[in-house]
Amino acid sequence: MTKVSPLAPTEFPKIEPVKGIRLAAGQAGIKYQNRPDVMLAVCDPGSVVAGVFTSSLTRSAAVLDCQSKLGHQSDQGVVIVVNSSNANAFTGAFGQTSVDAICTAAGNICGVNQEHVFTSSTGVIGEVLDHSKIIDVLDDLYVSAKEDAFEIAARSICTTDTFPKAASRTVKIGDSKITISGIAKGSGMIAPDMATMLVYIFTDATISQKELQSMVGELNAETFNCITVDGDTSTSDTLLCVASGASNVDASDSQTFKETLHDVMLDLSHQVVRDGEGASKFIEVEVTGAATKDEAHKVGMAIANSPLVKTAIAGEDPNWGRIVMAVGKSGARANRDGLKIKFGDILVAENGWVSKSYSEELGANYMKNSEISISVDLSVGSENAKVWTCDFTHDYITINADYRS
Amino acid sequence: MTKVSPLAPTEFPKIEPVKGIRLAAGQAGIKYQNRPDVMLAVCDPGSVVAGVFTSSLTRSAAVLDCQSKLGHQSDQGVVIVVNSSNANAFTGAFGQTSVDAICTAAGNICGVNQEHVFTSSTGVIGEVLDHSKIIDVLDDLYVSAKEDAFEIAARSICTTDTFPKAASRTVKIGDSKITISGIAKGSGMIAPDMATMLVYIFTDATISQKELQSMVGELNAETFNCITVDGDTSTSDTLLCVASGASNVDASDSQTFKETLHDVMLDLSHQVVRDGEGASKFIEVEVTGAATKDEAHKVGMAIANSPLVKTAIAGEDPNWGRIVMAVGKSGARANRDGLKIKFGDILVAENGWVSKSYSEELGANYMKNSEISISVDLSVGSENAKVWTCDFTHDYITINADYRS
Repeated sequence: MTKVSPLAPTEFPKIEPVKGIRLAAGQAGIKYQNRPDVMLAVCDPGSVVAGVFTSSLTRSAAVLDCQSKLGHQSDQGVVIVVNSSNANAFTGAFGQTSVDAICTAAGNICGVNQEHVFTSSTGVIGEVLDHSKIIDVLDDLYVSAKEDAFEIAARSICTTDTFPKAASRTVKIGDSKITISGIAKGSGMIAPDMATMLVYIFTDATISQKELQSMVGELNAETFNCITVDGDTSTSDTLLCVASGASNVDASDSQTFKETLHDVMLDLSHQVVRDGEGASKFIEVEVTGAATKDEAHKVGMAIANSPLVKTAIAGEDPNWGRIVMAVGKSGARANRDGLKIKFGDILVAENGWVSKSYSEELGANYMKNSEISISVDLSVGSENAKVWTCDFTHDYITINADYRS
Repeated sequence: MTKVSPLAPTEFPKIEPVKGIRLAAGQAGIKYQNRPDVMLAVCDPGSVVAGVFTSSLTRSAAVLDCQSKLGHQSDQGVVIVVNSSNANAFTGAFGQTSVDAICTAAGNICGVNQEHVFTSSTGVIGEVLDHSKIIDVLDDLYVSAKEDAFEIAARSICTTDTFPKAASRTVKIGDSKITISGIAKGSGMIAPDMATMLVYIFTDATISQKELQSMVGELNAETFNCITVDGDTSTSDTLLCVASGASNVDASDSQTFKETLHDVMLDLSHQVVRDGEGASKFIEVEVTGAATKDEAHKVGMAIANSPLVKTAIAGEDPNWGRIVMAVGKSGARANRDGLKIKFGDILVAENGWVSKSYSEELGANYMKNSEISISVDLSVGSENAKVWTCDFTHDYITINADYRS
């Protein structure tokens, strides 16, 4: 990993193990040397899986394979195999061949039907994946899998990430405790409708696949689909959430469970933004007063994806004119002469013009913060949305203009 | 002006004067010192005006004013006043006050009703325009206006542009010659649906306002709406096309006139891309085999706006995987396993995977060119589109992250 993002947490968070879920990671040497590049998750019989995936129309074979397998409740357990360094995307018929080979091997080793094996691959696009290297390490991973291996698992799925990402919450449902712990990777090619992101969340709560799937879809719309680094969409994005049921605590219809899952998903999604390629500032954009929720989201994303807004913030320039521009280009209804803009608590503009109380000095001082909050009221309705992004720096160009290594 | 774009033409093009049109530019000292910042165009009685404007919902007072005045055939002539350095956008009620003051003054001086005065302002957003400075120089400009002043006019409308932009064609319609000459400005905040662009095109042909308006709208869709620098949309984009009729050559239903106007508009639009902020490469993206023309355009724009594609090209990295990604995110129908990608004449990928004849060395060598052509065949239909953009370099960040000067 290169220089760690200035927005990274100071240390890897404490992750509570999840009953019924064992993890392992190892070195298959697909491309990277001296670092783990394959992860295995073994989920006990009775586990259910929910997932959301990239909306890309050139999605990878692994994504198509996962999508086809969702909703098959398993008595045998569930297995997840993930590799980094090669995305196995846009590799023609080789793509599905590699997915099949990994699923068959992992199924045999872990004693589950290959219908219950889910795979993801992340890394360079267009190079055939040497899946034999992955298969070669699966035996060892299966034997060494344990409940307390979240950190190495989080590290093994990273590509251009500068820090491993994980989040964990334990809460009471009734009198019993359940845990939700997850890991994520993602740094570039991050955009709405999922991104080059891989996210694996595990819980020992008991819940039906159908309810979990519906909850994950709904919460995804408020978390991972509200972050953007560069407006680009990956071919391989995958979020899988496994409920092992091993706690024997029923989470059906539990608001606490849903809120906690939301919390874990939001935490992980923010960590992805904090590791945005070249990011030096974490930016929250809140849009209020919109005619519809969709339009609020659209305005938020127009601001969060604007290269001119993002470069201004990188330069600590309180250039609110560019926010007006982004509102205008979004296509959402807005009352130009009622528009209100704030930086943090500082009122920047109201009634369609700069506020009397605002000064450039106030704005410029605020922009020195590493966490920036932008609020925009469109003054046409009562719907709102929040999205998160990072700034756009020289380091983004450096990272992405370098010849693939 | 700062360092001239490496993609700039070697010299200012030869611009043919247009009968019935006189131009002048001068220094009002609105913000810039020692350079022209106001342009006046005086168009003879009988002139008709067509225009297209930004689709931004936060468009400026000048744009709204121009839109309301189109289609009023004038016996008195037409006047255009343009200032650079201040966009007079998002300035509340002051916006329209300034527009009215300029139109009234220019109308009085040039002897036309203020209904026939069109204005544009470009520059910083959110600062009140001191229109008295503009009005103070109008008398002098009116007296000095002449047919042969395109170069100083082109210079006076520039903001962050690194070179003045102009194009000119003279053709025969029947046995008589007509001329179309135009100027443009634009460098950042350039995106589909018009951009921070100002474009003024003049012809001495005779044509009805209605036909000219319809032609300009149609040609705009294939030229200025097919270029993008950063995907951002300005509040102030304006293209005005004036036909003075002074040649007495009837251009109604003339295919030659339409093709020549297309040629001038395409030339000017490419000059804007060549002056894209920080641009080091000029990129043409051609999409074929699409299900609809809209989808072809959408894929072209997804590629041309992708920061990952644009940074790869800046780094001379033939990273075609990012093109696959951009095709996928566009939302347009594509046959992943029939996709064909070319760099210039080099076949990079076909049938959903890298081509047998392709080598990284071939691609890397091609990327050293300063003009890059990318072709993508979606393999689902027979519609196509072309769009143009530039690469995304460190200089873009430097230009836009600098505190407003």
